Amino acid sequence: MPVPAELDRLRVVLVSTRNPLNIGAAARAMSNFGFSHLRVVNPYGPAFREARSAVGAADVLASAEQYKNVADAVADCTLVVATSAIGHRKLEHPVLRLEQGSRRIRKHVRSGLVAILFGSEKIGLTATQMSHAHFLMRVPTAEKNISMNLGQAVAVCLYELIRDAKASRVKEKSTLASAEELERITLKLLEAMHGSGYLARRPITDVEERMRRLVRRLKLPARDAIVWLGILRQIVWKQRQSLSS
Amino acid sequence: MPVPAELDRLRVVLVSTRNPLNIGAAARAMSNFGFSHLRVVNPYGPAFREARSAVGAADVLASAEQYKNVADAVADCTLVVATSAIGHRKLEHPVLRLEQGSRRIRKHVRSGLVAILFGSEKIGLTATQMSHAHFLMRVPTAEKNISMNLGQAVAVCLYELIRDAKASRVKEKSTLASAEELERITLKLLEAMHGSGYLARRPITDVEERMRRLVRRLKLPARDAIVWLGILRQIVWKQRQSLSS
Repeated sequence: MPVPAELDRLRVVLVSTRNPLNIGAAARAMSNFGFSHLRVVNPYGPAFREARSAVGAADVLASAEQYKNVADAVADCTLVVATSAIGHRKLEHPVLRLEQGSRRIRKHVRSGLVAILFGSEKIGLTATQMSHAHFLMRVPTAEKNISMNLGQAVAVCLYELIRDAKASRVKEKSTLASAEELERITLKLLEAMHGSGYLARRPITDVEERMRRLVRRLKLPARDAIVWLGILRQIVWKQRQSLSS
Repeated sequence: MPVPAELDRLRVVLVSTRNPLNIGAAARAMSNFGFSHLRVVNPYGPAFREARSAVGAADVLASAEQYKNVADAVADCTLVVATSAIGHRKLEHPVLRLEQGSRRIRKHVRSGLVAILFGSEKIGLTATQMSHAHFLMRVPTAEKNISMNLGQAVAVCLYELIRDAKASRVKEKSTLASAEELERITLKLLEAMHGSGYLARRPITDVEERMRRLVRRLKLPARDAIVWLGILRQIVWKQRQSLSS
């Protein structure tokens, strides 16, 4: 997972964006994932001004920088990545899937500035705009519908950059009930079964072992053990009360 | 990466969504990532009808099912996952990061139906709605701004489900120029340097070896070798023409 100084070396570059909602959405995703440097190239006139009033991304939008062309917007970057849906047009660039492209970006931000370009909603990036990129990065969308909403594409790309592969391997911390607690519950359950007449009506061979395994299969959390034991105790107590009355 | 039959066992459940744009955006992300079963619970009146006219997700929206409550919407599912920004409220559920929760979901869809719940834009899921879930799943957002746009949250969660960890380890296929091509370029470059008078003005010791290493460091793609060689040949040809004229 990149450290904050590395995230700070990423530049999200929106090229010729038409819809102010999309600039706002891109800024919000940046804010959600800890990125702060937004650059807009030649946005549709009022779009950028309108976007500045979007919720949840005030800081990112307030500090966004505006450029006339892609060359100026990426001038200080040493790696430039173009995102693309990759339709039918002939591509002159190497194309990397998001998972693979992100690995390169993560490596690169350790030492230099990296720009990720997102094209306009209708046509994406033009061939000229793409020519500034070192490679194209493709979100692995289904062939049936490759075209993503701009704000969603930005969110997915930035998420891939900050996701922590190791987080998925972390063992979940969940304190399970101890064997002693499970055994108390098992015994109380057996008492309740006897008391209810269950075992008289439906005799079970090796009932104690069977019930012990049944209770163990519950994967009972430690904090719930006392509750279950209490419920069973109350049932057994009531059964005894009924017998003696 | 899940196979199509597995993706088909996922149910995206939008609970009390207010904004039709968000229902449309969720459906579009589903379509982008190959999911098709959308369920909406108690959407704001006109929102669902309006959403049906959203672009890029027609199939998903046309077949979306409407429910009155969460219990009905998840009745046929054997794993129910609630998404949550996890603010200050006290949580009674185990919380898994998206990377980790997705691993569970991927395992589960091999055999049963899985529902992922997304709450309303303003308040998320209520405690009662969450109580139907086996665990909560959290997109790893920055503490400064944990609240994601609904459509973007859906896109990121679905992307994590279809991303291919192995794709990031695949070696990029790029045919590099052969040693023979690089050698031809090196020799022609040396000729051009001599012809331009460069080496007479700035003599370089071990110039051939130095230039050979310089050219090798380019990682020249095979398809570009012929172009570079052509450029250098033309330069050398012109130099000779100038000398003989």
